[in-house]
Amino acid sequence: MVNTKILLDEAEIPTHWYNVIADMPNPPAPYLGPDGKPVTPEMMSAIFAPELIEQEMSTQRWIQIPQEVREILKLWRPSPLYRAHRLETVLNTPAKIYYKYEGVSPAGSHKPNSAVAQAYYNKIAGIKRLTTETGAGQWGSALSLAGNLFGLEVRVYMVKVSYEQKPFRRSMMQTWGAEVLPSPSNLTQAGQQILSHDPNCPGSLGIAISEAVEEAASRRDTNYTLGSVLNHVLLHQTVIGLETRKQLEKVGDYPDVIFAPCGGGSNVGGMMFPFLADKAAGKAIRLVAVEPTSCPTLTRGQFAYDYGDSVGLTPLILMYTLGHDFVPPGIHAGGLRYHGDSALVSQLYHEGILEAIAVPQLATFKAGVLFSKAEGIIPAPESNHAICAAIDEALRCKTSGEQKTILFTLSGHGHFDMLAYDKYLSGELVDQDYPEEILQAALQNLPKIHG
Amino acid sequence: MVNTKILLDEAEIPTHWYNVIADMPNPPAPYLGPDGKPVTPEMMSAIFAPELIEQEMSTQRWIQIPQEVREILKLWRPSPLYRAHRLETVLNTPAKIYYKYEGVSPAGSHKPNSAVAQAYYNKIAGIKRLTTETGAGQWGSALSLAGNLFGLEVRVYMVKVSYEQKPFRRSMMQTWGAEVLPSPSNLTQAGQQILSHDPNCPGSLGIAISEAVEEAASRRDTNYTLGSVLNHVLLHQTVIGLETRKQLEKVGDYPDVIFAPCGGGSNVGGMMFPFLADKAAGKAIRLVAVEPTSCPTLTRGQFAYDYGDSVGLTPLILMYTLGHDFVPPGIHAGGLRYHGDSALVSQLYHEGILEAIAVPQLATFKAGVLFSKAEGIIPAPESNHAICAAIDEALRCKTSGEQKTILFTLSGHGHFDMLAYDKYLSGELVDQDYPEEILQAALQNLPKIHG
Repeated sequence: MVNTKILLDEAEIPTHWYNVIADMPNPPAPYLGPDGKPVTPEMMSAIFAPELIEQEMSTQRWIQIPQEVREILKLWRPSPLYRAHRLETVLNTPAKIYYKYEGVSPAGSHKPNSAVAQAYYNKIAGIKRLTTETGAGQWGSALSLAGNLFGLEVRVYMVKVSYEQKPFRRSMMQTWGAEVLPSPSNLTQAGQQILSHDPNCPGSLGIAISEAVEEAASRRDTNYTLGSVLNHVLLHQTVIGLETRKQLEKVGDYPDVIFAPCGGGSNVGGMMFPFLADKAAGKAIRLVAVEPTSCPTLTRGQFAYDYGDSVGLTPLILMYTLGHDFVPPGIHAGGLRYHGDSALVSQLYHEGILEAIAVPQLATFKAGVLFSKAEGIIPAPESNHAICAAIDEALRCKTSGEQKTILFTLSGHGHFDMLAYDKYLSGELVDQDYPEEILQAALQNLPKIHG
Repeated sequence: MVNTKILLDEAEIPTHWYNVIADMPNPPAPYLGPDGKPVTPEMMSAIFAPELIEQEMSTQRWIQIPQEVREILKLWRPSPLYRAHRLETVLNTPAKIYYKYEGVSPAGSHKPNSAVAQAYYNKIAGIKRLTTETGAGQWGSALSLAGNLFGLEVRVYMVKVSYEQKPFRRSMMQTWGAEVLPSPSNLTQAGQQILSHDPNCPGSLGIAISEAVEEAASRRDTNYTLGSVLNHVLLHQTVIGLETRKQLEKVGDYPDVIFAPCGGGSNVGGMMFPFLADKAAGKAIRLVAVEPTSCPTLTRGQFAYDYGDSVGLTPLILMYTLGHDFVPPGIHAGGLRYHGDSALVSQLYHEGILEAIAVPQLATFKAGVLFSKAEGIIPAPESNHAICAAIDEALRCKTSGEQKTILFTLSGHGHFDMLAYDKYLSGELVDQDYPEEILQAALQNLPKIHG
């Protein structure tokens, strides 16, 4: 009997996170303040826990995972690595396909890997409350779960249109005890200002970030948390790639190519960074970020300093960006609708170490349905991007006869996204890609650096 | 580091199902036809595959699981057994609590364990199509998954009110390629008859069964499948209890009491039957079925011959029943809204080998939320019944100081049931228990046996 799942014991949950900065050919560019000068740890301490700021700036290769965090990770980790025997048969490919399934967490995605660590460090820093923003609710639910497990209050500013249209992830957050507010709200100056101009404003991720940051900055007992983009978030997600390495070792295999969906970069960093040193040492491994053609940050954006949020409250980050006021169309892979990208992912892509491709929405759902029928699991729309690229690669192998080993991240299940599948199956879903002129227009608004 | 999950290798998926009939003190009473005479295999062959009929009537203790079925089970089995460390701490109980988590299947519940076996046996019997009924969609989605994996067409008659109000499990079935029809439909005589009287009929499980059975009986290439109640369904579910026994052996433990939610009996049979021989051999183990007070089949029903469906198309089954025309209130644990119960579970309860208790809806949601906050996983409303009973037992242990080992089945996750949590959290949910007079009235309509 050939194994379908490659499992690890709980004792094999990584003891340390891997910090890719130690192995990057060039150090990442610093975050800049409004004055064009590098942001200091002191400036960040108004809204972040000290250990998280230290991790954000650390150059140490291995950072120990606190025992308290590992204890919580045991509720769902190590996550299974699957050999996709049935998908290989359906595709009739000589390639071997593996996928790491992160949908086994109680929130149904990889997001809790960092939420648990962030909640823990805030707890030991004496913080009582956490704020964050959420769109469709994947990160908000992860933080609600983690905050509850460490006895912290959580307030989630949820983009109003999602709050009203997608009530089920909201209910999930509330079940774990979080307070969920439609954003813009009346509780912050940012929210009040926007509502005074437009009382029916449907909200945006940028506005929700502004509200969550404003509240955290104004209250001593409260900190802010983010679910992607930042170095420490990607650091926490490296448990994904570290476990995968061990699992592949158990079956004597190694990937020729890895695909992960790419929004802010937490999947890409989490899976690929632990394989990066091998590449530097000469291993022929391709690391490919997969983004939507409707939000093509890496493939069509510009490598420049830009704000992390829409209204310009955050420091400036050197990253691939479509412009901080770029509003991507309402595709169903909500987690990939971000104008920018992690500084680390951006720099590694800029230096040719990571690759990137963009795939259109319809193709991703076609791939997701094919995958569901072969492997059973119905994937999140974000995950369908990696699946789409992996299937294309497997079909290329069919043509070429190559017996490549393909690995991808199945970052979450699609049980909260069935409306999207419904629309795809009924033929209502369309590709929503932006013409060059619109992309170019948004790039005109990049901030000027007064350095 | 103490383990949270007790895992098995794929090679430890059971090789045989356990047939409890071999160890029952008295053989189960036969199913009876309309003439009061026992139903023969020939009569069943119009709608069931030959191997399933054989299993339905078998007295053999162990029945081999086909390799093809085990290969599919590997997509999610063995399922994890959790030691509920965090729940124990929250309850401050000296009891040890274990739960077997069946929500890891692609459909999110234990139902695929039998769906895969039923699809397989129909496939090798040359059947091309399967029909079934579904209420909220848990069984329909399991059969859609399984049918697709074996290349069978699946048609699901879904109770119309659920079809319209709960679109997401429908989308799930359609993603796996099944055809889902609102019932009553115009495709069957049963459906046409009902629609001619009431064009706006919202449907019921009884009507949907009639439609699915009628279609299967009228087409040679088509068979019918059922997700609970029948002996062969409970047989297939014994992988749950068999795995659990092995997992507890690994940590040197054994349950003093087992709780499982009870609707048609597939959870109770699946988890408890493999422990039954121990009880007969003198082990002091309690096996407790947990049902809703709003559908109290075992605790307030009558042990009598009754129909399995509402309109009287099925054979007569000797079981605990509330009367085949009893319509339970619309509680959110849709899987427990069945007027009758498995013949095997009924007889074992009648003989005092199994126990049963009933719990009200609000208490089950209170227990489910407490569990979610401690253990992370948000349970299905059905599972909350077992959780409620397990927590009560753990709190009794706190009072008495007993260090009991408590085991329960967490039969599925609640990701498709967040509306129910929403209503509970917002205070809209109420207990809907039936007064004695109504229960007595339904029991007046039990069929007369012309034996």
